[in-house]
Amino acid sequence: MKKDLRICFIGDSFVNGTGDETKLGWTGRVSAQLERDRDDLEVTHYNLGIRRNTSEDILNRWGEESQQRLEGDFEKLIVFSFGVNDTVIEGGDQRVSAQQSLENARAMLTEAASVCRVLMIGPPPIADSEQNIRIKDLDGSLAELCQSLSVPYLSVVSELIDDPIWMREVASNDGAHPRSAGYTKLATLVSAWDEWDCCSVSISSIIPID
Amino acid sequence: MKKDLRICFIGDSFVNGTGDETKLGWTGRVSAQLERDRDDLEVTHYNLGIRRNTSEDILNRWGEESQQRLEGDFEKLIVFSFGVNDTVIEGGDQRVSAQQSLENARAMLTEAASVCRVLMIGPPPIADSEQNIRIKDLDGSLAELCQSLSVPYLSVVSELIDDPIWMREVASNDGAHPRSAGYTKLATLVSAWDEWDCCSVSISSIIPID
Repeated sequence: MKKDLRICFIGDSFVNGTGDETKLGWTGRVSAQLERDRDDLEVTHYNLGIRRNTSEDILNRWGEESQQRLEGDFEKLIVFSFGVNDTVIEGGDQRVSAQQSLENARAMLTEAASVCRVLMIGPPPIADSEQNIRIKDLDGSLAELCQSLSVPYLSVVSELIDDPIWMREVASNDGAHPRSAGYTKLATLVSAWDEWDCCSVSISSIIPID
Repeated sequence: MKKDLRICFIGDSFVNGTGDETKLGWTGRVSAQLERDRDDLEVTHYNLGIRRNTSEDILNRWGEESQQRLEGDFEKLIVFSFGVNDTVIEGGDQRVSAQQSLENARAMLTEAASVCRVLMIGPPPIADSEQNIRIKDLDGSLAELCQSLSVPYLSVVSELIDDPIWMREVASNDGAHPRSAGYTKLATLVSAWDEWDCCSVSISSIIPID
């Protein structure tokens, strides 16, 4: 009998997989890989990424949407990823200030971690070097916040800025989102993270040994 | 400039793609195929299938969840698919009576169709011949309801009962959900539906011709 792990991936267009012609995104690839890597797991994949969503938008919906999907007797995991939309300048102002982004993240991570295991993936770079500076700053702050909350955090922005596939696809697509090769690269970074091992360990640990 | 079509697929575990080791499900395959078939479309794929959801559960969440995803200046489409869980017998009772299933469907379809284009895919068969009779009955009633509301409806239950791949994968998996070959078969039926042409026509028709 395999363990029934249900994952809510909560975030923005990058979580949605916008631009990926295969419609798998990084979340579909990571879920499929996790099942291939762990004989003991069946993974249900709930993709709750919404285009244009800031941390503010996500704060207002993540609780209800994940509760709808994670009520029941099975293993639960919530994976957050957001931040790029917060750093967009619109009408002269940043959509969400860095301070507010962190307050929003703190509220979500604290509440989610009281319910189940939580992971966070940092925001990726886009084809705008000035915005990438703000994304990197936010990434550093989110990493610190997550450390203070004992939530595992994976920063991907530096590796993707140095990745020719990600940066070329983003630039030639819509300036923000890659196509399938970029999402495959991001999925590879996420799948290689050793926190997925912990996930398995944490699940095994609740199985009584007779 | 391609047209920006965002689709909410709303329903149950079959919409989620439960059992599909590729994590694409039929909704991912249909969305990718639609983009390949139509040079003029970019398709955003929102999968809002939840395991164990009956029409009652979906009635309570579809509006809020689709509104979160479909507010904005782009083409919108809602695709519903549910019914199998309604026909499950639990503790001697059917989870949702046939009459209540139809009332729930009528409420959702009427409201959704007042907002944007709506399609409905009927419930698929499982590995339980008695439940399949109830699924077929519900399928017939949903088809009639949809016709009365001018909502295009695609029945798939008879073709899938006759499909050895679907029935074999369902039986050898968990008795309800196929693996990737079954979902590929269902996606092929859905993609071949001529209502996707209408979708394209309807979108083209709002583009002014100068």
